[in-house]
Amino acid sequence: MIARERLRWNGWGRLGESMGFSRAREELLRAELGRRLGRSLEPAPPPVELEAIRPAPSKLGAETLAALRAACGEDAVRTGAYERLTHAAGKSLPDLLRLRRGEVGPVPEAVLYPADEGAVAAVLRVARDARLAVVPFGGGSSVVGGVAPLAAPDQTGALSLDTTHLDRLLRVDLESGTASFQAGIDGPALEAALAEHDLTLGHFPQSFEHSTLGGWIATRSAGQQSDGYGSIEDLTVALRMVTPEGVVRSLEVPHAAIGPDLNELVLGSEGAFGVIVEATLRVHPRPRVADDRGMLFRSFADGAAAVREMVRAGVPVSMLRLSDASETELSLALRRDPARRFDPTEAALRATDAFGYGAGRCVLLYGAEGPHRREVRRAMRRARAIGRRHGGLSLGRAPGRAWRRDRFRTPYLRDWLLDQGVAVDTMETALSWHRLLPGHEEIVRALRASLLAHAGAGLAMAHLSHSYRDGACLYFTVIYPLDAARELEQWSAIKGDATDAILAAGGSLSHHHGVGVDHRPWLERERGTLGLEALRGLKSAVDPAGVMNPGKLL
Amino acid sequence: MIARERLRWNGWGRLGESMGFSRAREELLRAELGRRLGRSLEPAPPPVELEAIRPAPSKLGAETLAALRAACGEDAVRTGAYERLTHAAGKSLPDLLRLRRGEVGPVPEAVLYPADEGAVAAVLRVARDARLAVVPFGGGSSVVGGVAPLAAPDQTGALSLDTTHLDRLLRVDLESGTASFQAGIDGPALEAALAEHDLTLGHFPQSFEHSTLGGWIATRSAGQQSDGYGSIEDLTVALRMVTPEGVVRSLEVPHAAIGPDLNELVLGSEGAFGVIVEATLRVHPRPRVADDRGMLFRSFADGAAAVREMVRAGVPVSMLRLSDASETELSLALRRDPARRFDPTEAALRATDAFGYGAGRCVLLYGAEGPHRREVRRAMRRARAIGRRHGGLSLGRAPGRAWRRDRFRTPYLRDWLLDQGVAVDTMETALSWHRLLPGHEEIVRALRASLLAHAGAGLAMAHLSHSYRDGACLYFTVIYPLDAARELEQWSAIKGDATDAILAAGGSLSHHHGVGVDHRPWLERERGTLGLEALRGLKSAVDPAGVMNPGKLL
Repeated sequence: MIARERLRWNGWGRLGESMGFSRAREELLRAELGRRLGRSLEPAPPPVELEAIRPAPSKLGAETLAALRAACGEDAVRTGAYERLTHAAGKSLPDLLRLRRGEVGPVPEAVLYPADEGAVAAVLRVARDARLAVVPFGGGSSVVGGVAPLAAPDQTGALSLDTTHLDRLLRVDLESGTASFQAGIDGPALEAALAEHDLTLGHFPQSFEHSTLGGWIATRSAGQQSDGYGSIEDLTVALRMVTPEGVVRSLEVPHAAIGPDLNELVLGSEGAFGVIVEATLRVHPRPRVADDRGMLFRSFADGAAAVREMVRAGVPVSMLRLSDASETELSLALRRDPARRFDPTEAALRATDAFGYGAGRCVLLYGAEGPHRREVRRAMRRARAIGRRHGGLSLGRAPGRAWRRDRFRTPYLRDWLLDQGVAVDTMETALSWHRLLPGHEEIVRALRASLLAHAGAGLAMAHLSHSYRDGACLYFTVIYPLDAARELEQWSAIKGDATDAILAAGGSLSHHHGVGVDHRPWLERERGTLGLEALRGLKSAVDPAGVMNPGKLL
Repeated sequence: MIARERLRWNGWGRLGESMGFSRAREELLRAELGRRLGRSLEPAPPPVELEAIRPAPSKLGAETLAALRAACGEDAVRTGAYERLTHAAGKSLPDLLRLRRGEVGPVPEAVLYPADEGAVAAVLRVARDARLAVVPFGGGSSVVGGVAPLAAPDQTGALSLDTTHLDRLLRVDLESGTASFQAGIDGPALEAALAEHDLTLGHFPQSFEHSTLGGWIATRSAGQQSDGYGSIEDLTVALRMVTPEGVVRSLEVPHAAIGPDLNELVLGSEGAFGVIVEATLRVHPRPRVADDRGMLFRSFADGAAAVREMVRAGVPVSMLRLSDASETELSLALRRDPARRFDPTEAALRATDAFGYGAGRCVLLYGAEGPHRREVRRAMRRARAIGRRHGGLSLGRAPGRAWRRDRFRTPYLRDWLLDQGVAVDTMETALSWHRLLPGHEEIVRALRASLLAHAGAGLAMAHLSHSYRDGACLYFTVIYPLDAARELEQWSAIKGDATDAILAAGGSLSHHHGVGVDHRPWLERERGTLGLEALRGLKSAVDPAGVMNPGKLL
């Protein structure tokens, strides 16, 4: 079960955890970023403590509270300030900006911990009768405002329905290669349960340590190794979702030609239809061999062409991640550690300058894993051969090791940067291959113009990851100095420019973060008016009173 | 464009086409089947000629006709008996039984051939205003009654909207590996258009020659080589569908985390929401090498275990098809040709008897194809190695050649058998691996009991095809003597028993045929009450007046 009390309430991840930089390395980074942003970085005012915040008292009447207690148990209904504040926001940049200033915004009237399907259903009934919204809350790691405890105008408030007590492995079907879980189980617990059967799901989003199966499903999540294992929708066999009108469930069959796939109505539904309570998933043999390596290309175009060819040829890699020149360059700066006299990767890179791997150079991380050494070796050999045809230069295993080590740690950097008055935000999209290179250029250009306009300076970079036969995800990072007087306006303006640029380039509104509050203004443009109406029609059948997660997707 | 006038109106496929058996071979088959069914086969009464049937005159008034002509053009509105009769049914067994007796049932009031999206939209508006149902009709090859021109009780009749004039290739995007078509294009035309770019879709359902892209999408079709190329939903990037309320369309992006996938609302919608007018599809390089072979197993369990392992190991085969012992045995009987003195496959099989490949023996067809000989060879070698570990015995290329030759011809056998007073019907499901073997046994047992009860005799057999990591499709064939006095009652009783047995075994209601009229009675059991309500909610948003294909899915 996620131990919420060990997590930061106004930042990423576990208390006490960080990127793990030494003080000297932090100093170097501060100086380096200051140089790039054209100003010396000053420590930001310290964040407001949780204890200093007094949320308005819960508006729940005694009758509703009693009904909720009857629904899911005495101890499962919590109205203390700590519970309510830790369920008031997710982990988006605007969430953190607000929380650090002590501006909490709407707070749930209560936090509920139902432990079985019946309790979930009972809570939804109470909420409907009491005109309360219900906001499903798993790991709470949404970076798009997906767990904000919003209520509709005709509702009296919102309940946060914490799913993390629904955390059991239900069964493993070795013959079919599937496993069934309650949906509130978190990443590490899910993998630990599968490890006992020598299995893995292979789904490792960056939020893996602090997110739940239900959250992955609700947001159409893609893990870092989705190139090999697929996105969560590829891994999903069957689902159970409790809605205010009853249970929607799909059958455990590998394929069916029976109307629209019910799983697909639930995948990406972001709590707008109901609470996902169970899922049966395709699992894989636990890999015994993993090989992750780096390769250098002269340009983003060369690297992207190599990635495209690898995917098109069906090379069974598990991960392909190509940084553009800006991200490659900044990663190298971030690697620098005064305590380390000699960095072989940096030295190797310096030596390649003479061969045309200069300012435009881009690092590709590629990896394969599986139960058989021979298959992994063969996949890596095939990937490398294709990379070489596009001018790729092997960088060996060191970049792969660094990726494995830091794969879940990178987000901690954001909190440290916020302490220096510097914001980091990320936005992602997916583009067809033929739109990918122009899209990358146009979006980065738009981001830089926006950063200049709204922050006076800033860095914008991207990597390509999650590749498909017909296109790939581009994941953008922006770093800019915060203007303490208008942090949220700054964010909003930059987010708006970024999203407009992404849609103008022909990209999807999001590749794996979801809609939440932040992407909602663009939703109709993306879905089309009637596409959105169709989903509202669906919602009206399962949630006619609008209990479920209002103000987000639908 | 599908040349409807060259097709049988009351049977499968092209006029003049057949299984291609010699007279002597037909005699042998008749004797053989008679022996197995325990009666001598008598020629059935000849089917009623189309010209002998006079449908009730079209109920369309002059005003509606004028509006339809304004909507899609003078020549695109047809009310002649020939057009109306050829759009009155699909190709299910009950369809053929009825048509052969001259019992046509409901006939569309008119057949419309809109040639662009605007004309489709205009037709839907006219239909809504005139209280007419619209039934999309592509190839008309539905085997579940999906194109029956039914009207709702509050409607005055049905229009058949023939999509086959929407048959253009719109664009090829070589870089993204996609191609966009109008959805009324038929299989051969689609493949011919792609062949000019050295591409293939790789989607070859048995109906390939007489079915359309829109039909494949509307029914979640799976081709014979879906093991390699995926089902139609795996091949679909983006769609446009015209509904009575406007256009639903999805974007050309490889993946998105934006609510439920709009493509998935259209895939399997069987015309209940609207008319699919365009699709962008993932295409593949045209294979230069194809290798299809046979392998013999001692039992269905051994063969299924081998197939499961091949799929689980990710061997890139394009086709795996394992006949059970009954189907294996009957296929051998069907192969017999008095003109051929020596059949090497049969001789080889006879020789294997001594090694335990006796009564329970099962033939697996396995194939791989692709642009590179080396990759195809490697896939076949890996498949063979796994097969051997499960007792598989190579049968070489002859069975593969026979499969390629007859892959689209088998259904012609049904018409010939109907001429002999013998019915053939097929039903398919998908089962998790752990339910597959018991399911196979239980369903075959139920089929045999049903055939005995309702036809006094009959053969039931199955093959496993379309495999997935977590399960596979079982495709059942029943052959039984028709009782001329109660052909439809016979069919209905057997179909009911079969479907009950399939659901009781934990299978999907259909793997790739769809719902149509025939599976509708079981739909609520499969979807659950609320799952069905959810889809009705969706329909109410895009088709509030219930114009689209009533009496089928929703």
